[in-house]
Amino acid sequence: MTRSAGPLKLKAQLFCGEEIAMGPGKAALLEAIIQHGSISAAGRALGMSYRRTWMLVDVMNRSWVEPLVETEVGGRRGGGARVTETGHAVLAAYQALMDEIGAAAEPRISALAELMRESPRPAHKG
Amino acid sequence: MTRSAGPLKLKAQLFCGEEIAMGPGKAALLEAIIQHGSISAAGRALGMSYRRTWMLVDVMNRSWVEPLVETEVGGRRGGGARVTETGHAVLAAYQALMDEIGAAAEPRISALAELMRESPRPAHKG
Repeated sequence: MTRSAGPLKLKAQLFCGEEIAMGPGKAALLEAIIQHGSISAAGRALGMSYRRTWMLVDVMNRSWVEPLVETEVGGRRGGGARVTETGHAVLAAYQALMDEIGAAAEPRISALAELMRESPRPAHKG
Repeated sequence: MTRSAGPLKLKAQLFCGEEIAMGPGKAALLEAIIQHGSISAAGRALGMSYRRTWMLVDVMNRSWVEPLVETEVGGRRGGGARVTETGHAVLAAYQALMDEIGAAAEPRISALAELMRESPRPAHKG
């Protein structure tokens, strides 16, 4: 009954002015900060540079009514960080958004699956 | 009542194996081919290279049960092209999918808007 059209990849980016206040990369970073308790450890776990990791945190912290990530006072590189109450709320809402649009997509994807091949025809004739 | 959280950007990509069978760029290309009646004119209108335009058409034509775009027999560069019945069906379904996930996102976006700033705080202290 539920035939797959191959994976559907959905991406949602929330803009605050010109900045991406929340998106797949920032949500993954918040999850990793919760897991690792440290911004730099979270970045390493995601394979991101130290510079990029802090840039994403900085953009998040400037885009919402309160910072999403707090570092410990006197923290050094590798020191502790925590996701704030607002950060948890934004992350939960973003995850719910992704679940909701995924569910909303399902009927249409099933219909499209009827028209899609299992795999692409080869690019060159054999 | 309906406060904007700034623009929400949603992107849906449908995969056939490793290939993107339909996504924002391919949908825009189908619309432009319908409008211009020519693959190369459509690519020019979208600012895409000739090579990239034809690559997108080729992937689409290999990913669905029937080609989405047909060129005229004996067509030369700049010659005519038409979107097939299957192409129209896939495009309409993709556009409906985008409308549906956009509508599904609205309540959650309104909730997130309550937590988002109108514009980001400046990156550097004044």
